[in-house]
Amino acid sequence: MKPPAVVLLSGGLDSAVTFAAAKKDGFRPHALTVDYGQRHLVEIESARRVASALGAAEHIVISVPLHIWGGSALTGQGAVPKRGPGDEKPADEIPATYVPARNTVLLSLALAWAETLGATDIYIGVNSIDYSGYPDCRPEYIEAFERMARLATKASVAQGKTLRIHTPLISLAKAEIITLGAELGVDFSLTHSCYDPDESGRPCGLCDSCAIRLKGFRDAGLADPVEYQAGSK
Amino acid sequence: MKPPAVVLLSGGLDSAVTFAAAKKDGFRPHALTVDYGQRHLVEIESARRVASALGAAEHIVISVPLHIWGGSALTGQGAVPKRGPGDEKPADEIPATYVPARNTVLLSLALAWAETLGATDIYIGVNSIDYSGYPDCRPEYIEAFERMARLATKASVAQGKTLRIHTPLISLAKAEIITLGAELGVDFSLTHSCYDPDESGRPCGLCDSCAIRLKGFRDAGLADPVEYQAGSK
Repeated sequence: MKPPAVVLLSGGLDSAVTFAAAKKDGFRPHALTVDYGQRHLVEIESARRVASALGAAEHIVISVPLHIWGGSALTGQGAVPKRGPGDEKPADEIPATYVPARNTVLLSLALAWAETLGATDIYIGVNSIDYSGYPDCRPEYIEAFERMARLATKASVAQGKTLRIHTPLISLAKAEIITLGAELGVDFSLTHSCYDPDESGRPCGLCDSCAIRLKGFRDAGLADPVEYQAGSK
Repeated sequence: MKPPAVVLLSGGLDSAVTFAAAKKDGFRPHALTVDYGQRHLVEIESARRVASALGAAEHIVISVPLHIWGGSALTGQGAVPKRGPGDEKPADEIPATYVPARNTVLLSLALAWAETLGATDIYIGVNSIDYSGYPDCRPEYIEAFERMARLATKASVAQGKTLRIHTPLISLAKAEIITLGAELGVDFSLTHSCYDPDESGRPCGLCDSCAIRLKGFRDAGLADPVEYQAGSK
């Protein structure tokens, strides 16, 4: 049987491609979705569809109420920043949609499950190119987490296993991620990227995440199969 | 106003002493209790009493269902190991009560709250002497977490702040922790250490945690004010 790996699956495009990459690498992916108080449960539903379509060995959705102390437009009541039509480049500063210590919490939970499964491999779809404003998406952060994780667990200490954090997308541009996903057979219509969908779950086409996604499809020369809100695309 | 610090507070003796040490260090402690699916809610109640008695600026109890994937006698249905009367030394192997990646999850949540508060200081009552079987209680693990955390957060990256993980108990024997707590005015009767209390919350006096606590009080020349189950002490 193939070795298990824990794949963090948000329901977004990047984590779906990451899941497909873990399968291609020869792992049996166990999908972990963390519901950290996102305002839109449509993300969780997307994660369920992606896990099912891509053949997860198991899919766990764990609730961790990171909104309990506030601190982000994604988990609080603040307005999500929108872009103008000609303003497609992310700002250099850290975005307001940053969730405090998010990837550290996500990777910690993945580490806990990995240890329970006897898995030594964790996949996360971080990307340091299009999201350079997030400190916890940088290679030096991931390396520091991996080093810490190798000291943290019973498995790595007592059994001599070497834990690895895989970040197959970390140095890819969005268009390259989309091309890779298309090659690996990812059905992008199942994925959800929008920070501000309407009541039926359709993406706004205007938030940072939609703008980056749409530019990525254009640059890759592919059509985004997702249906956007009227007049927004 | 004193600077804020996040203190991980379990309701046990060690974290209560750690909280008192944070106050003595000049911080305004914000207490964080993580309910990770412990079998005994008496621990959470103890944490509330300790936070109130020691004057927490705020006390948050966050539920993170780490039992969702099993893996420990503390969060599962397995029997808690007991000691014989003459067998007080912890075994060299990692105990069955180990919770996978527990301190990594706890510290990650503390980091998220610290960032939201604008705090750069986190306190955790780990101890590498009496709990040497836990990999995530060792100084090299804590240093690796601190290094990772300094790369992880908006505060540390964008604002040049230096995050610190404080472990005032890490090299103290249990008797020294108890002596320190007594000096700092900790009311030990509010704390709870037992892995296997009875229905009214009284400690068993026989599990690893009770055995270490009772030996600590004896070595410190102090009486444990907690009432144990009949015939167990």
